[in-house]
Amino acid sequence: MTSQGGHLNGRSVGAVNPACAEFREPFRFASGAEIPQWRIAYETYGTLNPQKSNAVLVCHALTGSHHAAGFYPGKPKSDGWWNNMIGPGKALDSDKFFILSPNNLGGCHGSSGPNTPHPADGQPYGPRFPVVTVEDWVRAQRKLARRLGLKQFAAVVGGSLGGMQALRWAIDFPDEIRAAVVIAAAAKLTALNIAFNDIARQAIRGDPGFNNGEFYGRDGPRKGLAVARMLGHVTYLSDGLMSAKFGRARRENGARFGYETEFEVESYLRYQGGKFSNVFDANTYMLMTRALDYFDPAGETGGDLARALSPALAEFLVVSFSSDWRFSPARSRELAAALLAAEKRVSYVEIESDFGHDSFLLNIPRYQEAVAAFMDRLAENPQGAGQ
Amino acid sequence: MTSQGGHLNGRSVGAVNPACAEFREPFRFASGAEIPQWRIAYETYGTLNPQKSNAVLVCHALTGSHHAAGFYPGKPKSDGWWNNMIGPGKALDSDKFFILSPNNLGGCHGSSGPNTPHPADGQPYGPRFPVVTVEDWVRAQRKLARRLGLKQFAAVVGGSLGGMQALRWAIDFPDEIRAAVVIAAAAKLTALNIAFNDIARQAIRGDPGFNNGEFYGRDGPRKGLAVARMLGHVTYLSDGLMSAKFGRARRENGARFGYETEFEVESYLRYQGGKFSNVFDANTYMLMTRALDYFDPAGETGGDLARALSPALAEFLVVSFSSDWRFSPARSRELAAALLAAEKRVSYVEIESDFGHDSFLLNIPRYQEAVAAFMDRLAENPQGAGQ
Repeated sequence: MTSQGGHLNGRSVGAVNPACAEFREPFRFASGAEIPQWRIAYETYGTLNPQKSNAVLVCHALTGSHHAAGFYPGKPKSDGWWNNMIGPGKALDSDKFFILSPNNLGGCHGSSGPNTPHPADGQPYGPRFPVVTVEDWVRAQRKLARRLGLKQFAAVVGGSLGGMQALRWAIDFPDEIRAAVVIAAAAKLTALNIAFNDIARQAIRGDPGFNNGEFYGRDGPRKGLAVARMLGHVTYLSDGLMSAKFGRARRENGARFGYETEFEVESYLRYQGGKFSNVFDANTYMLMTRALDYFDPAGETGGDLARALSPALAEFLVVSFSSDWRFSPARSRELAAALLAAEKRVSYVEIESDFGHDSFLLNIPRYQEAVAAFMDRLAENPQGAGQ
Repeated sequence: MTSQGGHLNGRSVGAVNPACAEFREPFRFASGAEIPQWRIAYETYGTLNPQKSNAVLVCHALTGSHHAAGFYPGKPKSDGWWNNMIGPGKALDSDKFFILSPNNLGGCHGSSGPNTPHPADGQPYGPRFPVVTVEDWVRAQRKLARRLGLKQFAAVVGGSLGGMQALRWAIDFPDEIRAAVVIAAAAKLTALNIAFNDIARQAIRGDPGFNNGEFYGRDGPRKGLAVARMLGHVTYLSDGLMSAKFGRARRENGARFGYETEFEVESYLRYQGGKFSNVFDANTYMLMTRALDYFDPAGETGGDLARALSPALAEFLVVSFSSDWRFSPARSRELAAALLAAEKRVSYVEIESDFGHDSFLLNIPRYQEAVAAFMDRLAENPQGAGQ
């Protein structure tokens, strides 16, 4: 590592302003559906060097947005979702890299999605917004990169669904990324994961407020979305963490012999579910979970993951967390083994953590050091790490 | 083992008829609530010996009933839920034991519960039915036993929530059971398990059809109950089993780029959820999951499980399944260790199985052999096994 003091002494990128790129041309989705024009909200941190060799793309997960780092002036508690990872002196060092963080198509934070107007009638797309795939996001991100004058990324970095995007980039545009950092991800969902996603969607669809996705200007499926979020949230944590954090502790003044919140864990989850359902779009939740289900590069090569990965030219860093049972270390090891079988350069790191899948968002020194070491090496060798 | 050929060559108990015991006296619940009169539906298999020393109580789990073995004449597919375990020559051998299987209070299969009439107005209890605990069930089962002339059980046997009842029997009425068979259970739920139960209840309560539990004579919260069941079902299986059974297989004629059933696992789960919501009572589901949450004998002894177990006189068989992540082997080992610390006689068996928590319902030879060996020894020594 070259950064003296390391990322743990890093600073915030400070105040940031989101930007938006408008594309007055159709976007055709993998499904064949098309939207006539579209836009991508994004943020950038750091400065592009004259050679344009230091750009890093950060891809968000299920419920993320383009606001990955810094804060919005005048808005308290507006820190970006990866603020502990991105900044001067941090693992993704904005003194060294020009970091681009877009909101994905179908999102609900400024990019074209179900809650943005359909150009035909000015009404929100709602359920008319096409089902979107990881491939679609990668193609849209590439258009955004071109718009910003970027022809190659030093790295594409993401956790969970974001890691899948990094993987897809490496396969689909091999000579346009020099490294891929794939964190707490998998080459495809298991049946259990697909099942959890479907149950979440059933909870949303079963809420009469969902109204087949036509809920704009009304109350919306807040209860169903809260149940979906609670389910996601609980499975992104670990049993050990929840036991340590809540155990069987009861709330003061909690009910007894009833169904109101009595255990602390119930209170916490209901709060999280309710908060989320106030700010997130249920149609976007449907789209994002379906994109997760569909992701399966090896599905295109008869199940042979090594063959699916063979076009890649990037160097890979694969990171997993010991207590993550939605995207377990076994899945990351599968991916690393397939990368090795395909004769790619790959480093695999398994981080001990009690925090389950959500570990990828947290301030875990060994994790941040591993990413920092990999990224620092890339920064030193702009033509590719390890060469 | 004494039974030549063993339980695997066992037969069905054949046609059975449920019975019902009416109690024209109040039942007072642990909560302090009372119902003025009550009834328990039950079945029995085998014959009580003259010494009345061969009675075995079978306790059901979340969604079970008193119909544990045999079939109902004229009703196809009416096999009892533990038909592979109970019968002549089977692990719970009805040639040796007189097996009593009640439906618990609060259930929806004939015992007093939310779907039975309140004596005051003849309308279903609905949400007026008191919150019920494992302790309540054990006291009601004991009243039923007395009604049938039974003063001591050779064994109390149950899986999951049923195992908790066996444990409670051993603690609350030590000289009335000679053995406890505690299968795929735990001395208390973890925070994760409480969370899953609360999410299931939120799904039910969020369905407008639930109407605060007043849904009799109407459609009821079928979507919410289906979501609750899907969630329960998926967590009672193992990731490995689901991957083996469904993987990412797609249905023939399945939709593509949409939210209808496309993956086999979605189709399976939605079918299971829908089927369940046609036959089960949502208020009972609420009650049963809350009873699970509340169970915690060590909560009464400052967290000291060994001390909570110290009154017990029974011999214990504790069984767990390797892939069960809702009631993991670690929880069963905790229980076995506490029993040893309390100087009880205990055998612990961990069964290799890919079938998750639902293993306790399945035809797994090593599991059935372990239960059979324990039960056969009890049958040979009517004054207590191992003495």
